[in-house]
Formats: sequence, C-alpha cells, structure tokens
Amino acid sequence: MAKSKYEYVKNFELDDTCLPNCWIVIRIDGRSFQRFADIHGYVKPNDIRGLNLMSRAATCVMDEFRDICLGYGQSDEFTFVFRKDTNLFNRRASKLMSTVNSLFASSFVFNWNSYFGPIRLQYPPCFDARVVLYPTDKNLRDYLSWRQADVHINNLYNTAFWSLVLKKGFTNAQAEERLKGTVASDKNELLFSEFGLNYNNEPAVYRKGTILIRKLCKQPPEGKLRPIILPFFTDMIGDSFWKEHPEILGLKSLAIYHPPSEDLPNETNKKSSSPPAPKNPKHEAEKLQTGHKRQKKV
Amino acid sequence: MAKSKYEYVKNFELDDTCLPNCWIVIRIDGRSFQRFADIHGYVKPNDIRGLNLMSRAATCVMDEFRDICLGYGQSDEFTFVFRKDTNLFNRRASKLMSTVNSLFASSFVFNWNSYFGPIRLQYPPCFDARVVLYPTDKNLRDYLSWRQADVHINNLYNTAFWSLVLKKGFTNAQAEERLKGTVASDKNELLFSEFGLNYNNEPAVYRKGTILIRKLCKQPPEGKLRPIILPFFTDMIGDSFWKEHPEILGLKSLAIYHPPSEDLPNETNKKSSSPPAPKNPKHEAEKLQTGHKRQKKV
Amino acid sequence: MAKSKYEYVKNFELDDTCLPNCWIVIRIDGRSFQRFADIHGYVKPNDIRGLNLMSRAATCVMDEFRDICLGYGQSDEFTFVFRKDTNLFNRRASKLMSTVNSLFASSFVFNWNSYFGPIRLQYPPCFDARVVLYPTDKNLRDYLSWRQADVHINNLYNTAFWSLVLKKGFTNAQAEERLKGTVASDKNELLFSEFGLNYNNEPAVYRKGTILIRKLCKQPPEGKLRPIILPFFTDMIGDSFWKEHPEILGLKSLAIYHPPSEDLPNETNKKSSSPPAPKNPKHEAEKLQTGHKRQKKV
Amino acid sequence: MAKSKYEYVKNFELDDTCLPNCWIVIRIDGRSFQRFADIHGYVKPNDIRGLNLMSRAATCVMDEFRDICLGYGQSDEFTFVFRKDTNLFNRRASKLMSTVNSLFASSFVFNWNSYFGPIRLQYPPCFDARVVLYPTDKNLRDYLSWRQADVHINNLYNTAFWSLVLKKGFTNAQAEERLKGTVASDKNELLFSEFGLNYNNEPAVYRKGTILIRKLCKQPPEGKLRPIILPFFTDMIGDSFWKEHPEILGLKSLAIYHPPSEDLPNETNKKSSSPPAPKNPKHEAEKLQTGHKRQKKV
Repeated sequence: MAKSKYEYVKNFELDDTCLPNCWIVIRIDGRSFQRFADIHGYVKPNDIRGLNLMSRAATCVMDEFRDICLGYGQSDEFTFVFRKDTNLFNRRASKLMSTVNSLFASSFVFNWNSYFGPIRLQYPPCFDARVVLYPTDKNLRDYLSWRQADVHINNLYNTAFWSLVLKKGFTNAQAEERLKGTVASDKNELLFSEFGLNYNNEPAVYRKGTILIRKLCKQPPEGKLRPIILPFFTDMIGDSFWKEHPEILGLKSLAIYHPPSEDLPNETNKKSSSPPAPKNPKHEAEKLQTGHKRQKKV
Repeated sequence: MAKSKYEYVKNFELDDTCLPNCWIVIRIDGRSFQRFADIHGYVKPNDIRGLNLMSRAATCVMDEFRDICLGYGQSDEFTFVFRKDTNLFNRRASKLMSTVNSLFASSFVFNWNSYFGPIRLQYPPCFDARVVLYPTDKNLRDYLSWRQADVHINNLYNTAFWSLVLKKGFTNAQAEERLKGTVASDKNELLFSEFGLNYNNEPAVYRKGTILIRKLCKQPPEGKLRPIILPFFTDMIGDSFWKEHPEILGLKSLAIYHPPSEDLPNETNKKSSSPPAPKNPKHEAEKLQTGHKRQKKV
Repeated sequence: MAKSKYEYVKNFELDDTCLPNCWIVIRIDGRSFQRFADIHGYVKPNDIRGLNLMSRAATCVMDEFRDICLGYGQSDEFTFVFRKDTNLFNRRASKLMSTVNSLFASSFVFNWNSYFGPIRLQYPPCFDARVVLYPTDKNLRDYLSWRQADVHINNLYNTAFWSLVLKKGFTNAQAEERLKGTVASDKNELLFSEFGLNYNNEPAVYRKGTILIRKLCKQPPEGKLRPIILPFFTDMIGDSFWKEHPEILGLKSLAIYHPPSEDLPNETNKKSSSPPAPKNPKHEAEKLQTGHKRQKKV
Repeated sequence: MAKSKYEYVKNFELDDTCLPNCWIVIRIDGRSFQRFADIHGYVKPNDIRGLNLMSRAATCVMDEFRDICLGYGQSDEFTFVFRKDTNLFNRRASKLMSTVNSLFASSFVFNWNSYFGPIRLQYPPCFDARVVLYPTDKNLRDYLSWRQADVHINNLYNTAFWSLVLKKGFTNAQAEERLKGTVASDKNELLFSEFGLNYNNEPAVYRKGTILIRKLCKQPPEGKLRPIILPFFTDMIGDSFWKEHPEILGLKSLAIYHPPSEDLPNETNKKSSSPPAPKNPKHEAEKLQTGHKRQKKV
C-alpha cells in the first residue's frame, strides 16, 4: 500500500502554462445543441430564455473569476477573456479552462428552472471549451469582431429562414433554396418586403449578442458603489465601445456605470453604443444581479 | 461586417493532439469541495449520498463516451480512462477534457435531487480537470494504484479523526494532535480498541473507492445482453482485478458480467475481488442503471 | 542597467519536457542536400564517402551522449534513439534536439577532410531536426522499420535510375519515364537483365542503411573490454536483429561484441543478420573508432 | 517491406507551431564552452577572434534566413530574432530552431581557420538552443536589454578578475575573494586606481556585445544598394538605437546605412549610438561581408 511507490506517475503531468502577456480567451460551445434546443422546445430563430440562461451562467463564472474582464455570448457559445496579466492558477491552461467550463455547465443546469419554468430539463448538457492566446489588443478585438460578425451573419440568415418557414409555410428545404446565394441586402429586403420586418429594429440582443462587463454600480439603499456584471448589446467592431470602456484593454480599475438617461428622446437612446437590455433593461439587469450574491474572491 | 477580415484569428488556436498509443487519463477534482460539503451538510467522514452522486455523474459521462473504459472515483475526484487507441475528437486534449468535465458537472447538478432529496443545492459546483498520458499498461495501473492507495491513507485517517471528534468529543485540533505521527497499524489499533471498529469491515466503497466498468448484463424481460456500467468496490493494486477483467487493458470486446452467486457463503463473497455495492448491491446497480437511458453513440 | 528589471522575460520560456517512459527519437535531415551533393560531386546513386561521413558525425554524437542507444542513418538523414528512461537535460525536448543536432552539424564539417580529401567544402551545411516520442517498443521498431523500408524503396529506385542514366545514356526524364509504374520485382529484373546486376549483391550499406550501436569490444593490447560504437548494415525489420541485441530494447548493460568468425564459409557469413561493413569491415570499424577518443561523460 | 504498414508512426510527430504575431527569439548557447576556450587558448577576459568567429557564424545564419531581423551576440551565446510575421517553415518551432542552430554550428567550424589561423580546432563544438516567444515590442526590447545588461555585468567582473590574475598574480580564488560583494562602481574604481584602466574606454564590442542588423549599403563599383548584415556595438537598452533603426520593430523595408562621417571630431563619433566596429570598422565590415556571397533566398 506504499503510496510513494506509485507517486512517480505524477511526473507524467506536463506543464501547460500560457505564454505571459497575452490575452487568454476561453470559448465554450454547446455540444449537439441543435438537438438540445429541439427537445426543449426552444423558440426559433432566437429563444430569449435560452440566451438569458447562457448569460446567467456566464455571470456566475465571471463572479467567481474576477480576472475575467469581458464575456461575450451568442447562440450556444460564450467567450471569456482573462486579463492579459492574470496569474490565476499560474496561467495553467487546463486549470483555467476546466474550472470556467465546469462552472458554466453546472450554473446552466442550476439556473434552468428560473428561465424555463415548467419545461423540465431532460438531460444534462455538455459544452466543449478551448483556450486561445492573443498577443495584442488588436488581435483580441479582431477575435471579438469575428464572433460578432458571426452573430450578424447567422442571425440575419436565421431570421429570414424562420420567417419563411413559420410565417409562409415553407419547408426547411424550400427556405434554404430560397436563400441560397443571397447577400445581406437581399435578406434585409426580403424581410422588409415580404414580412414588413425592419431587421435593424430586431432586438439588439439577437443582432449583437451579449457583452458582459464589470461596472461599479450604485447599490440601494445607500447608493454604495459595488462591482456588478452588466449586459450590453452593442457593437464591438467599431471603436466606440472600446472608447466608452477603456478600462478593459487598459487593465484599469473598474469604471462607474452611468445608465443612459431615461428621459432622452428615443432616437438618442438608440444611437447609444451601450444600451442596456433592449426591452426591459432594469428587469434583465436585476435578474442577472441575483447571480452576484456569492461575492467570493478567487 | 466582413467576416473574412477577422477570420485570421482562428490561426491562433494551436493543436493539442495527444500522443497516439497512450492511455488518456482525465482526472476531475472538486474545487473548494470542503466548503461545498460543509454547506450541504455532508456526513463525516464519508457521505454515501455524495459518493453515489459522483458515481452517477461519472456514469452519465461514460454513457456518452464509449471509449472511456474505466472510471475511478473517490472523495471529490473522478478519473476517466480513455482507451489508448481512441480517436475521439482526433485525440484533441482540450475537446476530450472539456466535454468530459462539463458533462460531469452538469450531471452532478442535474441528479442532485435524486441523492440529496430535500437538501437544496445552494450554488453550482466547480471542478477542475487535467489530462495525463500514460504510455504503458504498467504506468496506467500504477496511476490507479496511486489513487487507490490515496483513498486508503485518507480514509483510514479520516475514520480515526472523525471517530475522535464525533464519538469522543475531541476538538479538530485535539484529534489532529492525537493522530500526529501514527502509522496505519496505530490507527487500526486505535479504531479497534477505543471504538470497537474493525476498519476492514468498513464499507468497501469507503475503503476502496468506486470503479466503474462496462459489462454485458442480461436485461429483463428476455435476458438480452446489453452493455451496462457497473460499480465495483475492490482492490485494483493487486493482479486479481485485472485478471478478472482482462478486456480493459486488452482493448477487447466487453465481457459478460457474472454476479457473485447469492447462496455462496458470506466468506467467499467477501474475498471476491469484484463484489457489487457493499450494502445493497442490486439497489445501487439499479440506481446507476437509470443513468443509462440515453444510449446515444458519440 | 539593473538586470533584475528585465529578468521577467525568462518566464516566457515554456517547459517542453518529454513525456516520461517513451523512447525519444531525434531525426536529423540534411536541408537542400541534393544541391549540396551536386556541388560537392557526390557519386550517384550512393557516395560511400558521404555515408561514412554521416556515420562519423553520428558516432561523435553518440560518444557524447551515452543515453543514445541506437543510431540509424541513410542518405542525408540520421535518427538517434534515446533510452526511454533517459533523464538527460531533464528530458527537455529543445535541449536534447539542439545539442544533438548542432554536434552532428559541427562534426560533419570537422571531419569533412577525412572523407572528401582534396574536395574542399564549399559552404557549411544545414540540418533540420525533430523530436518524436514512441510509447512502446513496437512503435519504436515500427519507426525504424519505416525508415529502413524507405531505404530499400529509394535505393532500388535510385540504383535503377542511375544505371539507366549513367550506363545507358538516358536523360533524367527518360529514366523517370522508364521506371514509372514499375514495382520492386520489375526493377530487380531490369537491373539483372539489362545491367547484369543482382541487386541483392549490392553493398549492404546501400541497401540497409547504417545502424550504430554500442558494444563492448576487446581493445589491444591487453584485450580490455571497452564500449565502442559499431556499424551494422543489416535488417532491422525482422526479429533477428533484436534477438541478437536484446540489450537495446531491454535497457540492459552493454553486450560483448563477437565478430563473425572469419573462416566460416561465405554463405553463412552472408546470412548472418549482423555482418560488419560489407567490403572492408575492419577498416571501417577502425575509422569510426577514431571518433571515440573523447570519452567524456555527459 | 511494405512501407505503408509502418507509416502510421508519422502520426506521432506533434505540431509545434509558434503562436502567430509574436516575436520568435532563438538563443544559442555554447555547451561547456569554458573548457572549449581553455583548450583552444582563448585570451582572457575577451578573445576578439572568438567573438568575431561567433559573429561570422551568425552572419551566415542571417544570410540564409532573411526573416531574422536582428542578431545579438555576447560571449558564447547568440540570439536571433525572427520578424513577428514570419511564416518561415510555417512557424514550426523545431524547424526554425534546428536549422538556425545547425547552420550556426557548421559555420563556426567552417570558418574556424579564418579566425584562429594556426590553432587547430581540437574537436567539434556543441550548442544548445531554445525558442522563446515575445508578444510585444516591449517584451522583445526587455529581452535584449536583459542580455545586454548581462554583458555589462559579466564583462566588468571578468575585466577586473583577469586584471587581478594576469597583472597582479592573484590566484583565481584570491581574485574571487577580492571581488566578492563589490558593486559596479567598486570595480570601476579598482580598475582605474590599480590598473589605470578606464572601463568605459574598453572596446565597445566587449562592453556592449555585437548587434547584427541588415542595412542597404552602397556596393562598389557602381554604388548599387545591396542588403548587408552590419555589426553594431552600441547600447540597445535606451531608445536611441530603436529610433535610429525603426525598421526593425516596425517590420519595414530595409533602411540605407549612413556610415558616421570620418572627419567628425572623435568626441562626436564616440557619442554616436551606432558606431561601427571599434578599432577597424571597415576591415571588420569587410570580413563579415565575405559571408554574404551565398545570397540564396529561403
């Protein structure tokens, strides 16, 4: 029963430290989520319950790991960006990836009922994860732009596709055939002319995905500032977002959140590059905040 | 919005293929599980509900990934051994690790209520994971022996420690002091003389951990053979286990499970190196089998 | 000028330890060696001076690194096999690869004149190198078989090709055309019928490549046993070689070298699976031994 | 003899691509060079023949690999910096490292006689090598500053040490004892007061190491601009060097070399941060240029 006789096997564990001074990006992806969505009756083309549950799980992860400075979710995937100077777990890739990924998965199941109410979870879902390093701010921004461009392309397609299927009675094959070879402007035109739908008025959460960042927010009753993870549904490809939140790339202290003034004319509000949740921002923010109770330090 | 402009960032994903012809071992470990156990009222020194829940989650994982030929759990950790010839996910370490780990975590939460009934899960748990490669059968066996020797050492210590605390009213510090410097035989003697407890009669699941392997079992009503993941609570350090289940290291077809004869004298039963669950084997096997419903192929 | 301010850059050096208990294979390959051979007037299809120089350089490497248990050379490549239990440089891949590779390159230049006499070296040659791990003896043997099968295929082709070109006046393109689609037996037949050449009588060093292993040899004058790196030109694909030199895979002490008896009939000598150099064994062994002078330990 | 049966072993070669958009630094280090220097009678504390030979070998390497934008040598080590956007060998670490390292080693031996004349090379030297990635320009500059600060520290010590030994008859142990605990200013003072030596007047090649960069130089007879690798012996820690050669970090086209005007007063010449070789610049530049004959593209 001598333990020492076997302990040599520990030496087979090899080092997987991430290169210093690089942004550490962990991307989580639902495995076979089309099937998962079908079985659980996800609404097409976007199920707000599913998206909010993803954001909730991501907020749990970011509450636990303060060195994650940005989360970005769309569809069944979520990206977490660790500060380039993080030393969490000595930057060991496996540790970072596995803790983020498992906490995301367990939070997803843990919070299922809050979002899907009477629909019972049929089986535990599975997510894969990967770690990617980005040496420069530009590379990181390009990565996030890549994911956000992906949302745009997919969501425009899906919106057109499901309009044809759900509102015009097309079969899936017919809808696919109809959209083959179309470019973005064709799909915009199709949505407008045949369904009276102005794509740009679709909820931003569908068109832009969900950006999660940490801001200092005044907390009732005394208005003390506390770090809260807030959702933004805005463009990250242009410069505005990064100018409004310079603390992210700048590795600075958290910035205070200034909510867009409520009595501003609608137009202004819309142009703002950092609007809160499209329909019911306060409600959404509050819901997400409930995930903040466990304020443990890592 | 050109996607292609950003797609170069995919090239930053580096290959992490596992060396061929090595056993791929993935070990999952509960993060801050002492705290988790305390908050959820785990019984000391061993909580059978917690252990069974771990095994259930592991069974979910093994049902999903047929190339896992052995699971081994103890305390808050679980090891999964992939066949050395697996080509699942082209042997990419991140893919293997993250899917196993996230499915384990989501299954743990998903099945919580079946094991902890009225005790509500307070927050989603987190598990880290690592991938280790073992080139030879001997290395793999030594790895498993290392983990099983670890169970022995820890469980003997914990059994003595908590007997002192729970039955003699020692403080934690006093119990620690009392056990300082003792070897295994001292602790056995202490348990026997002071608590009338023969350590070797403690449930095997506590002393040996839980081995999960796939066997062909007769299924009612017609007795058709089907692959079922069965728990064993036996010694893996000696040769017997490996002789009784040569298909594991031999990468052979599944073997038929022959349950120990029920009318054999107790003594024989005890010596058997592959007893079913200690107290209520059928019940335990049945419970675990319920996890088998989803017989999806990977 | 404070050094410490900059020393953080050392942390960017990442660990590249080789997995324990695997054979470490380093293969060196001449870069643009066709051009090198042309410029230096290498004889076609095989230049014995070039091959012997490669073996000499390899012997220098093996003299320096005692944990290399086998070397195997053909054409412009050389393979070095480190014992699977080596702990040289703590198994760091870069260290192992770079020292072997640079010593080979410098030895090649250092010994050039001994082999190419009046032909002046025109420029310093370049070799690339790679590290590959093999978990089992079978994998290692298959690797060596792969390289030796490669010699056979290439040498048979080259022998036929250059016979056509040099003895029949074919252009390169004509020779290529003539051999297109031919299998081994076709080429054997071609060589025999058109050039009266029995391929199996070609020197073994061309047909089999050069195996370097360390043997204990009696040294004059007193016949003391000393470890000497000897060349063998024999088949490694079958079992005989490995049965005759069980110390290699068995990680055993060096074995004593028994030269094939000189008065045995030629036929027996030929069947022996470990003949010394085909034409002039003693001379070749002696030449290689001169590289042994520096008996430094690593 | 079927080759295909064994070809599976190629799959054991794992990918080692360098992360994109990082500076790839390869550092070569003489192995057991103290012994090598002793055996070949290197002058203490600095042997200009040895340093020039190192630079010559490095120039051969840089002539072969145009994506190396800077070389930096000191003592028995040389650093090569590949452009961060290089795609040479698809950025495979082993390939980059092994070709650079072996070409350096073979060039060292190839050019030995040109520098050490009648002193015969006793045995082939060996160099280890490593690859390190630096994500930002600052990290790269800090790396180079680290190596240059190292030169300063070592050379000041060695100058003092060997002055004591060679000019005052100290034993090595006595010299070591004398210098124990001294800081830079102590050693400067010692050199000045006891040996009348102003350390700052020592040749820059000893104090600063050798920087090799590629510049466009007018070539006789018609003054056509050609890329030539030139040695600089100047400070890289401050900003001047990088301002004078912005093309290096800027990944720009090669810049034209403007030699310091010869009729400028000595004082000006000295302050220049990019002086040519200290004693006999033209001669040195010419010698190095002879290595440029082989203008092969990679």
